[in-house]
Amino acid sequence: MDRRAFAQTLAATLAGVALPRRAARLTAFSAPRVNGARLDAHLAELSAFGRNPEGGVSRVAYSEADRQGRAYATELMRAAGLEVRVDAGANIFGRRAGSDPSRRPLLIGSHTDSVPGGGNYDGDVGSLGAIEVAQTLAEQRVTLRHPLDVVIWSNEEGGLFGSRAALGELRAAELDLVSNSGRTIRDGIRFLGGNPDDLASARIARGDVAAYVELHIEQGGTLDRGHVDIGVVEGIVGINQWEVTVDGVANHAGTTPMDQRHDALLAAARFVEAVNRVVRGMPGRQVGTVGRIAAFPGAPNVIPGRVVLSLELRDLDAAKIRTLYARVHDAADTIARDSGTTFAFRPTVENVPAPTDPRVRAVIAEAARALGLSTMTLPSGAGHDAQDLARIAPTGMIFIPSVGGISHAPRELSRPKDVANGANVLLETVLRLDAA
Amino acid sequence: MDRRAFAQTLAATLAGVALPRRAARLTAFSAPRVNGARLDAHLAELSAFGRNPEGGVSRVAYSEADRQGRAYATELMRAAGLEVRVDAGANIFGRRAGSDPSRRPLLIGSHTDSVPGGGNYDGDVGSLGAIEVAQTLAEQRVTLRHPLDVVIWSNEEGGLFGSRAALGELRAAELDLVSNSGRTIRDGIRFLGGNPDDLASARIARGDVAAYVELHIEQGGTLDRGHVDIGVVEGIVGINQWEVTVDGVANHAGTTPMDQRHDALLAAARFVEAVNRVVRGMPGRQVGTVGRIAAFPGAPNVIPGRVVLSLELRDLDAAKIRTLYARVHDAADTIARDSGTTFAFRPTVENVPAPTDPRVRAVIAEAARALGLSTMTLPSGAGHDAQDLARIAPTGMIFIPSVGGISHAPRELSRPKDVANGANVLLETVLRLDAA
Repeated sequence: MDRRAFAQTLAATLAGVALPRRAARLTAFSAPRVNGARLDAHLAELSAFGRNPEGGVSRVAYSEADRQGRAYATELMRAAGLEVRVDAGANIFGRRAGSDPSRRPLLIGSHTDSVPGGGNYDGDVGSLGAIEVAQTLAEQRVTLRHPLDVVIWSNEEGGLFGSRAALGELRAAELDLVSNSGRTIRDGIRFLGGNPDDLASARIARGDVAAYVELHIEQGGTLDRGHVDIGVVEGIVGINQWEVTVDGVANHAGTTPMDQRHDALLAAARFVEAVNRVVRGMPGRQVGTVGRIAAFPGAPNVIPGRVVLSLELRDLDAAKIRTLYARVHDAADTIARDSGTTFAFRPTVENVPAPTDPRVRAVIAEAARALGLSTMTLPSGAGHDAQDLARIAPTGMIFIPSVGGISHAPRELSRPKDVANGANVLLETVLRLDAA
Repeated sequence: MDRRAFAQTLAATLAGVALPRRAARLTAFSAPRVNGARLDAHLAELSAFGRNPEGGVSRVAYSEADRQGRAYATELMRAAGLEVRVDAGANIFGRRAGSDPSRRPLLIGSHTDSVPGGGNYDGDVGSLGAIEVAQTLAEQRVTLRHPLDVVIWSNEEGGLFGSRAALGELRAAELDLVSNSGRTIRDGIRFLGGNPDDLASARIARGDVAAYVELHIEQGGTLDRGHVDIGVVEGIVGINQWEVTVDGVANHAGTTPMDQRHDALLAAARFVEAVNRVVRGMPGRQVGTVGRIAAFPGAPNVIPGRVVLSLELRDLDAAKIRTLYARVHDAADTIARDSGTTFAFRPTVENVPAPTDPRVRAVIAEAARALGLSTMTLPSGAGHDAQDLARIAPTGMIFIPSVGGISHAPRELSRPKDVANGANVLLETVLRLDAA
């Protein structure tokens, strides 16, 4: 066995198995490794808050379950020796001091809120994984040069509210929106211990953070299908959404001959197919989705006169989104002409693509390789707090496989081995960023 | 000008213009003709009940506006010398006695309730047209051999409730359904003066009626486009409806690559197109419609995992409906295979086709020709009380043009000339049926 093979075998063993602390200390490089079994147990304990009878959790932001989950995470932070504070945006920060007072903090973390009917890994892995990294550093008595901040962002699933508050990008009008918890954003922030009247105090400015690294489950099936251990995220895709209104002529379904119809639903059906055809007709990883549709008046015996549907396009490249949209729009024009209907597009969401930092990406890839883990570079199709942080700090994301690509559902699963791998890559990345 | 041309010109004049009674008496044949101007005025007066600001009426069955409209029609009946009664099913009957006590009654009429946001002609023309026929007979002192019953069926638009009650086909469970008025069918029948606890007393049995003839607007554009005066209805089409459920896999719209999706809405869109293709792929007047659609969970950023939609097929020939359904089902099987989804069909409505009586059809056509009016034979794509009556009595329907084929909408319109033509054909048909 050559030196490289030996190192790989050793690293794989370390990554996959929860070793007693003493054993870890006896490894060839004495490199610190997380306690995978403990992390797994913490994930199981967190899953009690908001647990659903059918599995998974509904730990919707600002709900009582959310507050309980955050209280549990806060306990873990304190147990890891972190000094905990809640900012005005209700983000929880836990600090481990560094040896060099001149250094800005390294920031790691994620979120613990879930979608309604969500699973036990989205956000939780990155939050408890970051705490596990801090705990491991404490146990191994590793002192970093940088301060290390572990963060749990508030209300990620509702629209990145915590991280946007920290960037000063939360608009006053948004505070009055009603969240899925039933509370307004304002009341929800207060409910979690924040102060919606003093959001300016939560502000993190460009340059305040040395680097931000978020560990997360992929939520897609690319790593799982490819049997790849670690995804190095090249960026968070841009998301554009439109509300599309198709107008035809509502009429009696019994008395209007087929060749006399201006059926808005038939035109909409052709549009749904066209979106799929256009998006699949270009090489690349772009996606396009029609997820919502309503036909009016919506009776079985009336030809629909109006259909309203959603169009969503995502890609890492904003120019490509523009090209796709232009082609979809052209297809709609053709359908409209052929069917005697009209299409109107109203933009509703525009999140610009957020590339990650090339240097942080390289460090993550090196860290994974040092642990003997296979990697691939891929975009994040989902939105994350990291897309906000990418605007003010060098940012990276570490993905671990989601079994079957299932997410936002009770069956969401990432295997304990992969969770431990991810946390170890995060730990190794922090060590390397600290040393750089 | 030859004799035929002269007769045609004369008849057209009589049909189109409201003649003073004296002038009508002086015509070549002294045949009685309705007073078109009066009928037009009555339609305008009826339109006041349930009138909508944007035009048309919402005279939904069992509403206060419906009760007022029926009270107005009852006054007209009494003014026409009819003896009025309301049966247990809340149908209004007005009788003009005949000279031969052994004869069963000729029955003519329609309904005065409307759909929500309906127009001023659907049902109204046939109801007030039948009363106008009775009034004309009274004024002209014409005594028929048969008794003549003018009927206004209750709650036609909600599902032929009045005529089905009269046939003894209303199921007890249906009385508890909530109608568009907010009242249950039971309370609605009582509200209109019927007795839901004694529906048996309303029963009309096979053989009780000599013939039933209903005048109605076409509600489609066939007569209007063809510049044809009168439609001789060959039957009321059968209507089959199904609820179709398409199951795929709901998943994250950002993280699920295009080639890994089981998008229920994409499959449903292909199905909507297939229904159109199958129905248009056979010669004939059959129609097929998807009027209702819902996608779940129905968020712009989630691939739909389930779509529920309606399928409706209509034709005069039940065997053709079965063939169309088989082809649509085959198409769904192919779509399901190609997209990794499943389709399930649940029948919800089955109204069998109701052919009209060939002898009554011939009499209507002869009556129209005697009045110099052009005719064509066509199916009724819409349901009517006549489809119930066709099961127990020789039944016919007279259609007049709907401008632009628009119906169940404020812009519904039949021209006064056509309304008068229709009422005169109804009158002439009654005279000929009485003489036969």
